[in-house]
Amino acid sequence: MSHKFQNDYSVLASPRILEALSRYGQEENVPYGLDRHSAHAASLIKEKFGAPNGSVYFLSGGTQTNLVFLSAALKPFEAVISLGSGHINVHETGAVEGTGHKIVVVPGKEGKMYPEDIEKVMATHRDMHMVKPRLAYISNSTEIGTIYTRDELRALRECCDRHGLLLFIDGARLGSALTSKQNDVPPSLIGAVADGFYVGGTKNGLLFGEALVVNNPSIAEGFAYHIKNRGAMLAKGYAVGIQFEAAFEDGLYFELAEKTNRMADRLKEGLKRLGLPIMDSPTNQVFVTLPKGKAEAFIAAYGCELWEDQGEKMTIRFVTSFATEEKDVVELLDFASSLI
Amino acid sequence: MSHKFQNDYSVLASPRILEALSRYGQEENVPYGLDRHSAHAASLIKEKFGAPNGSVYFLSGGTQTNLVFLSAALKPFEAVISLGSGHINVHETGAVEGTGHKIVVVPGKEGKMYPEDIEKVMATHRDMHMVKPRLAYISNSTEIGTIYTRDELRALRECCDRHGLLLFIDGARLGSALTSKQNDVPPSLIGAVADGFYVGGTKNGLLFGEALVVNNPSIAEGFAYHIKNRGAMLAKGYAVGIQFEAAFEDGLYFELAEKTNRMADRLKEGLKRLGLPIMDSPTNQVFVTLPKGKAEAFIAAYGCELWEDQGEKMTIRFVTSFATEEKDVVELLDFASSLI
Amino acid sequence: MSHKFQNDYSVLASPRILEALSRYGQEENVPYGLDRHSAHAASLIKEKFGAPNGSVYFLSGGTQTNLVFLSAALKPFEAVISLGSGHINVHETGAVEGTGHKIVVVPGKEGKMYPEDIEKVMATHRDMHMVKPRLAYISNSTEIGTIYTRDELRALRECCDRHGLLLFIDGARLGSALTSKQNDVPPSLIGAVADGFYVGGTKNGLLFGEALVVNNPSIAEGFAYHIKNRGAMLAKGYAVGIQFEAAFEDGLYFELAEKTNRMADRLKEGLKRLGLPIMDSPTNQVFVTLPKGKAEAFIAAYGCELWEDQGEKMTIRFVTSFATEEKDVVELLDFASSLI
Amino acid sequence: MSHKFQNDYSVLASPRILEALSRYGQEENVPYGLDRHSAHAASLIKEKFGAPNGSVYFLSGGTQTNLVFLSAALKPFEAVISLGSGHINVHETGAVEGTGHKIVVVPGKEGKMYPEDIEKVMATHRDMHMVKPRLAYISNSTEIGTIYTRDELRALRECCDRHGLLLFIDGARLGSALTSKQNDVPPSLIGAVADGFYVGGTKNGLLFGEALVVNNPSIAEGFAYHIKNRGAMLAKGYAVGIQFEAAFEDGLYFELAEKTNRMADRLKEGLKRLGLPIMDSPTNQVFVTLPKGKAEAFIAAYGCELWEDQGEKMTIRFVTSFATEEKDVVELLDFASSLI
Repeated sequence: MSHKFQNDYSVLASPRILEALSRYGQEENVPYGLDRHSAHAASLIKEKFGAPNGSVYFLSGGTQTNLVFLSAALKPFEAVISLGSGHINVHETGAVEGTGHKIVVVPGKEGKMYPEDIEKVMATHRDMHMVKPRLAYISNSTEIGTIYTRDELRALRECCDRHGLLLFIDGARLGSALTSKQNDVPPSLIGAVADGFYVGGTKNGLLFGEALVVNNPSIAEGFAYHIKNRGAMLAKGYAVGIQFEAAFEDGLYFELAEKTNRMADRLKEGLKRLGLPIMDSPTNQVFVTLPKGKAEAFIAAYGCELWEDQGEKMTIRFVTSFATEEKDVVELLDFASSLI
Repeated sequence: MSHKFQNDYSVLASPRILEALSRYGQEENVPYGLDRHSAHAASLIKEKFGAPNGSVYFLSGGTQTNLVFLSAALKPFEAVISLGSGHINVHETGAVEGTGHKIVVVPGKEGKMYPEDIEKVMATHRDMHMVKPRLAYISNSTEIGTIYTRDELRALRECCDRHGLLLFIDGARLGSALTSKQNDVPPSLIGAVADGFYVGGTKNGLLFGEALVVNNPSIAEGFAYHIKNRGAMLAKGYAVGIQFEAAFEDGLYFELAEKTNRMADRLKEGLKRLGLPIMDSPTNQVFVTLPKGKAEAFIAAYGCELWEDQGEKMTIRFVTSFATEEKDVVELLDFASSLI
Repeated sequence: MSHKFQNDYSVLASPRILEALSRYGQEENVPYGLDRHSAHAASLIKEKFGAPNGSVYFLSGGTQTNLVFLSAALKPFEAVISLGSGHINVHETGAVEGTGHKIVVVPGKEGKMYPEDIEKVMATHRDMHMVKPRLAYISNSTEIGTIYTRDELRALRECCDRHGLLLFIDGARLGSALTSKQNDVPPSLIGAVADGFYVGGTKNGLLFGEALVVNNPSIAEGFAYHIKNRGAMLAKGYAVGIQFEAAFEDGLYFELAEKTNRMADRLKEGLKRLGLPIMDSPTNQVFVTLPKGKAEAFIAAYGCELWEDQGEKMTIRFVTSFATEEKDVVELLDFASSLI
Repeated sequence: MSHKFQNDYSVLASPRILEALSRYGQEENVPYGLDRHSAHAASLIKEKFGAPNGSVYFLSGGTQTNLVFLSAALKPFEAVISLGSGHINVHETGAVEGTGHKIVVVPGKEGKMYPEDIEKVMATHRDMHMVKPRLAYISNSTEIGTIYTRDELRALRECCDRHGLLLFIDGARLGSALTSKQNDVPPSLIGAVADGFYVGGTKNGLLFGEALVVNNPSIAEGFAYHIKNRGAMLAKGYAVGIQFEAAFEDGLYFELAEKTNRMADRLKEGLKRLGLPIMDSPTNQVFVTLPKGKAEAFIAAYGCELWEDQGEKMTIRFVTSFATEEKDVVELLDFASSLI
């Protein structure tokens, strides 16, 4: 059977992550994330991402991480600003609203939020009859695979400061963003601009788990209670701590992301060479718009996702992962070639 | 360093579980629990626990599983009946209340709920000024390691039927309960009496994960949406599916539980032989009441938990797990012997 | 001081409502809405609005009524479909999200929702990663004073039926809608098409209170518990029951609404005669777009609301109420005349 | 028909309250509690109750007021300490849990909470697996009509300070408490010890409404947004403001309470003279334990509440109100006399 290009979480884990789990498989560890592996992983992450005063918590998935952080950061009447296409707004089954908070939607451009988006929200939310916007939520890489530049992140931070807003970065695919050839954001800038962010494991070769960095002390108070209250405290926290330790003690995390991007770049080049109209995206999501029949052939053969149905044409999405190999890309390109 | 007797989730996983994860480590699987391993595990669990019409979902931890099920089963004004000592009432940081529901507390006896507990609640909750009790929550084994008999479970079911109540069984330690030497409950009775229950993995040798069986069709509708809404949907659902498949395809689950109980029995016999006053508990939690100084020595050496501080005396708890070996018990007993 | 045209809830109550309250001021009544006045008012409302099997509850305000009904009708992962301009979406400070539910926004036309709006939502909400739309929320009259026709309401009902959706009508200004000269909806159609609706008192001359009709038996079960759980149960329910009894036993409710509309019509005619560009709106909200300076003069003199700031021009809103008199309209028109 | 002694909210309002409403019945007022009457009433209340820096909000009922304040004061994982008999714990249909917070129950004595109750809770709630107690909730008068002394309130405040806890006083019957013959608490002490409290109108002769005083600036921030978010913002806030202005500008509030207590005292003396075993209660709730048959005769004739059913005996409760007259008490005592 062919390798699928459906997403970046269809293969369990990098062999090196599985080895780490086996290595410590019979070791006794303190539960609830208070173990030495979690502590070590936390300090590696804080150093790498420029968050010396942050607190790191290991959770089991992205939706959970978003809802845990946002519900800790906001009062009942406070709202999140997000792009309409934001993961929390579309693909989390109302999890943020489930904790009681409205998401105020802005248009953005190319999947990214800009200060002008925030300014417009703040100009119209002026009294107690509307929610009080309190936090800007962005993803890097974004839902359509684009990435923020250094200047864009700084401008957002300044805008948030002007309005007393918090800034949260959903880093489900942070590895892919920061190892993109087009990236100019150093990891340490993430900690410098965000009140909270997470470093995604599930979509970057870990068996499961996300590392949430609570980077604003006023939110960190009592945070472990909050995690437990939301059902997100892992008894075997060290199961995730061991993985992030392995991912960050020798650069594995970025190696996996870099390889993922490399495969996506190979794929984009190949598709371009075949004359297919691919959307410009610098990370591991590749969007192509094709006539309906051809799009459906790709979907059938490679499980890639139908992103947008425009009737006669369809935009489909290919995703590469740590487990995508050169030969898989070659096979897909052969298939594409035969299809045209 | 000595083996700790602090709890049953301090060691990552049974080697056979880790092997299963490695075996399928590079296989491609459909995400969100829609894979073949999860389907296979679900059918094994439904068969074993007498729930042919149940729906099985794999979640990441016990508190999460409890809150997901209870918040799906209850309307906003409906309440849960639980023992005061119930896990949801004491040790889940208000997670059930966090989803909006009151827990109505009953005393029970020896850690177990009886029909008379329920009758008293129903007699006093008669109008719209009080919550409407709608579900009885019990654990098997209980918080103090006791287990329900066949007749007790049936009597609870009948009582619930009389009052239009749902019955939920928290099976964080269901393996230990059903393999206890004193147990007379066949696994299939669980599915026969419960509207919902879970089969605990975290505390029985799995790396992580609980198998929730939604056994009442009126609650099952839209349940996957509900799981996602609560942040509990695992992208790599197959990571838990693979483990439960391994646990139930050849009896591993009960083997691990049986060994855990055997080690606890060895420990209880040994302590008894030393003349120590142990509480009668037929599963893997062993409670002993000792003079303060001796209790503290045990806590320091074996990480066992202070269960109740009565001033001059202390009740401490030893827990065995799949990873406890004969030699660990022997060492602990030697220490106990030297202490007396 | 001039009569203000800011809104329809700036004057306490119609003298006839105050008389009714005084008449029963020292009478003993059963609390919690179980009194004879509430029962009588409920039966009058059910008859008038074609809801023979509905249950009527008297609540204290519109936002409360909306959140009480919606949170009773929806499971945690279910969502409301509303216009972007919908009261629940803009002017209730996130109260619906506060009970855990996402509002899915549709554009509509002229302040009204159409089946095509619903169709588009249903076409894109197809799996468990997105919320499950379950209820369409509309207002009559709408936020911009427009009203639904008989055919439009029936078409919405049919569309809801096709998709298994509930339909809720926010009737904060239902009186004004149903007594508009352009209205072709008989009151009984409201009960025929809606699973729930409320008949607004606060904005139609009552001291306070809304009559919520729960018209779908599956939602009505346990509803009084739900009201209390949300803090919306009035101890002196009869305080609202007496008012609605007075409003419906001899036609006062529609008399007040009809007069309100008449004053608005007088105002619209007068403004039109002065050549001012008024938006076509058949109820008691009158929208005019004026040069900034003139708009601000009106705001200063009559407290009318700035509806939309387009820079050089501003749209402002005048609202008439039961307390608006001919002379007030004449005075406003004189002012308008002098301004031009 | 006889005057009922069922509760203190069966008669609409004191004639003087109704007069005030009529007096301002056709006056135009700014909505949402921003009117001059509400401002005046707020300043009278702040002065009377020693809360110069408090913020006053007028809400529609007691359960609503409790849930609004508590949900604003607490983070998701924080809990309320309350007596088991506390109104929020028994008679509010889980409204506090409905906002996500656990109520930790303490026994107290004679309906009152003592520092030792709090100390025990704080001693057992020591880690993130249990909720974090954050606020002590008491009522004055209590559920069984007892009242706090000056020293008791001060001792509670000190205890709360020691543990970083907030103190909230439910004043549904604060008038009755502070005008009791046994009372030694000056009104100004309420503001001196409480982070929040409310002055009850519904149970003290107002048509409806409670005055919530948010007395801790850290909770007051954004409070109006919070009220609206909970559906508790009254469009015609001045409807309550006018009543509290009338109640506090010339002492009416305490006059009504004092009369209520006087009637209760008359009743207690009379019942005592008849040799009936009445519970000692210094406010307007009178508890008597009688043989079942006699208790039931009282219930049938006077609508008084069955408080506790002990089988052969029953404790019943008589409540006096602003509307109870001497002749009503005489009639009841005649009935009692004839019954014995």
